[in-house]
Amino acid sequence: MVYNFSAGPALLPAPVYARAAEAIHELRMDGHAHNAPGTGMSILEISHRSKAFGAILQHAQVLCHEVLGIPRTHQVLFLQGGASLQFTMVPMNLAHPDKFAAYIDTGSWATKAINESQIIGDTRVIASASDTGYDRVPQFPTPNLYAGASYLHLTTNETIQGVEYPDVPAVAGDVPVVIDFSSHAGSRPMSLERATLGYAGAQKNLGPSGVTLVYVHKDVLARAQDEHIPMILRYQTHAKEPSVYNTPNTFGVLVLQLVLEWMRDEGGLAIIAERNTRKATKLYELLDGSTLYRPHAQVGSRSQMNVTWRLAASSTQQQEQATKRFLEQATLAGFDGLQGHRTVGGCRASIYNAFPERGVTALCEFMREFERRA
Amino acid sequence: MVYNFSAGPALLPAPVYARAAEAIHELRMDGHAHNAPGTGMSILEISHRSKAFGAILQHAQVLCHEVLGIPRTHQVLFLQGGASLQFTMVPMNLAHPDKFAAYIDTGSWATKAINESQIIGDTRVIASASDTGYDRVPQFPTPNLYAGASYLHLTTNETIQGVEYPDVPAVAGDVPVVIDFSSHAGSRPMSLERATLGYAGAQKNLGPSGVTLVYVHKDVLARAQDEHIPMILRYQTHAKEPSVYNTPNTFGVLVLQLVLEWMRDEGGLAIIAERNTRKATKLYELLDGSTLYRPHAQVGSRSQMNVTWRLAASSTQQQEQATKRFLEQATLAGFDGLQGHRTVGGCRASIYNAFPERGVTALCEFMREFERRA
Repeated sequence: MVYNFSAGPALLPAPVYARAAEAIHELRMDGHAHNAPGTGMSILEISHRSKAFGAILQHAQVLCHEVLGIPRTHQVLFLQGGASLQFTMVPMNLAHPDKFAAYIDTGSWATKAINESQIIGDTRVIASASDTGYDRVPQFPTPNLYAGASYLHLTTNETIQGVEYPDVPAVAGDVPVVIDFSSHAGSRPMSLERATLGYAGAQKNLGPSGVTLVYVHKDVLARAQDEHIPMILRYQTHAKEPSVYNTPNTFGVLVLQLVLEWMRDEGGLAIIAERNTRKATKLYELLDGSTLYRPHAQVGSRSQMNVTWRLAASSTQQQEQATKRFLEQATLAGFDGLQGHRTVGGCRASIYNAFPERGVTALCEFMREFERRA
Repeated sequence: MVYNFSAGPALLPAPVYARAAEAIHELRMDGHAHNAPGTGMSILEISHRSKAFGAILQHAQVLCHEVLGIPRTHQVLFLQGGASLQFTMVPMNLAHPDKFAAYIDTGSWATKAINESQIIGDTRVIASASDTGYDRVPQFPTPNLYAGASYLHLTTNETIQGVEYPDVPAVAGDVPVVIDFSSHAGSRPMSLERATLGYAGAQKNLGPSGVTLVYVHKDVLARAQDEHIPMILRYQTHAKEPSVYNTPNTFGVLVLQLVLEWMRDEGGLAIIAERNTRKATKLYELLDGSTLYRPHAQVGSRSQMNVTWRLAASSTQQQEQATKRFLEQATLAGFDGLQGHRTVGGCRASIYNAFPERGVTALCEFMREFERRA
């Protein structure tokens, strides 16, 4: 038995594994619905322009609206290249040459998005939490700082530092808001209608790696597109032939659809969010009550998905040794993937939707026992 | 029983389906080698930076060299976005601002590559088969036409028209050659060392959709990169952190590795090419001996992977009706995916590596019977 705390790709629900494996042997019609007739073909060999795959694609889009709450004013796209490709597609498509793009710097992923925007055009960081080591989301900027911007970009959950906006912030004025909600998409009800465009690598709560969920307001798509943007990098291209301008990750889209069905069958986002709150609360309570573990994120900015901490020590070297010992013993005890991101060190437990509550309970027991012995 | 003639995603070998489905339940170590110990995790949840996935990635790279014959002077990358993203990455990375990019226009995919290159910079079409309706590869251009070019791009197999260069052409001079070999990669031994860069969407002979195989000469990677190119679109980015700069399509890379293992176990490219020649010959002989079916590609340029034909008729309308009748009856008889690409019409049988010889025999019988009754 292994508990996988990986930050992504991450654990998916067990019924999804079973149905995905079945679909590799033979895909059934109607988006692999229960008891639907077989197609005589594997999901891996089926054409992205076939009727069977068309049904999967359409069903996945509908579930994005119905389960995730993406408003009908926006179009849902399933692209490739992860959030990293969106870091450049966003400024390519949304930046006006005579305006600046406004970014809020919440951590490692925001920084990457900012760097890519700078390659494309005028970019201003209008708020940053770097001076506190990204242990909280920065104070929200006043409207004068983003007035006149092409768009305002924010990373609503930072996977590496473990800080989170519990919802898409309500932004004053008419600046288009763009969100990278990769690592908490589908973890709780959110006001997704507040964003003009949102994007999420699927490989946390939504599916396997290799699929990016993008939703974009139809008004943006209706505008004339810049002919200087490569075809494959225009949102309009993918909206016109919905997600099949070129061959999508067909298997990945199927799995995403299966995950969304699971979320619906579990009772939807409100129920899932309750579980996620219970799991995260349990772990943060342990961290707050401990003298050995030091939670990184401050109250009010704590991610429910990625819980980060360090081990208390009198020197950097001692801390590294203690962390190493902790991680080694954790791995032996069946807790996998607890090391912090290689760029920041420390420890991190990613506890996405499919991660079971009993796994958090077991980790807490292990951590208490480790602290007692330390 | 369905025979799937889809142009891609396309049929993969049966043992690959079985092992891919197993890996969804539990990934085994050593790239899912037979009898390797289990990881306790599904391939869908495993981190792209884990030891287990690192082994898959490395094994897949080695097999690309050993089975496909990619020279060791070149680095193998597994990217996302299909050939369509390469259409823009190639000129972004390889075009010099004071030179032109030379393209050979062999059909629909070459045209797409040309259009994307034109968005990036000076592009010249130095040979085209458009005046004969892309029924053959054009006469190879004389060196004066590509002397001084940044690179010479050619599409070595046109999936839609069904024309093929049997090998990468030997090009005089020192112009870097770039090939799109998507739809015949792995179908026959090829002089891949003649290209500085080659790319192939995996979803024909190599694996599922959502993975692009790229191989690029290390000399190109060693050159200083243009800071104006978005990070994710630089080959150097993906070469520095081999295929894990961002999260790759982990499942897709596993399946690609399993397909390459199957190719190796079948005896390698020479054996596979013999089978492919037998299959294609059988179908072309039928077309040449028929008065009803008219092969599209001319002798000397015929693709072994994508066999295209039309039905003889006295008018366009009659032809459309005859084609519709043919395709309907074929589908009823269990032959799926024989419609030509929506942009050109007609019929097409894609008979990639995993497509069984008995399926070609069965199709030939059906076609003879259809002609007898017509």
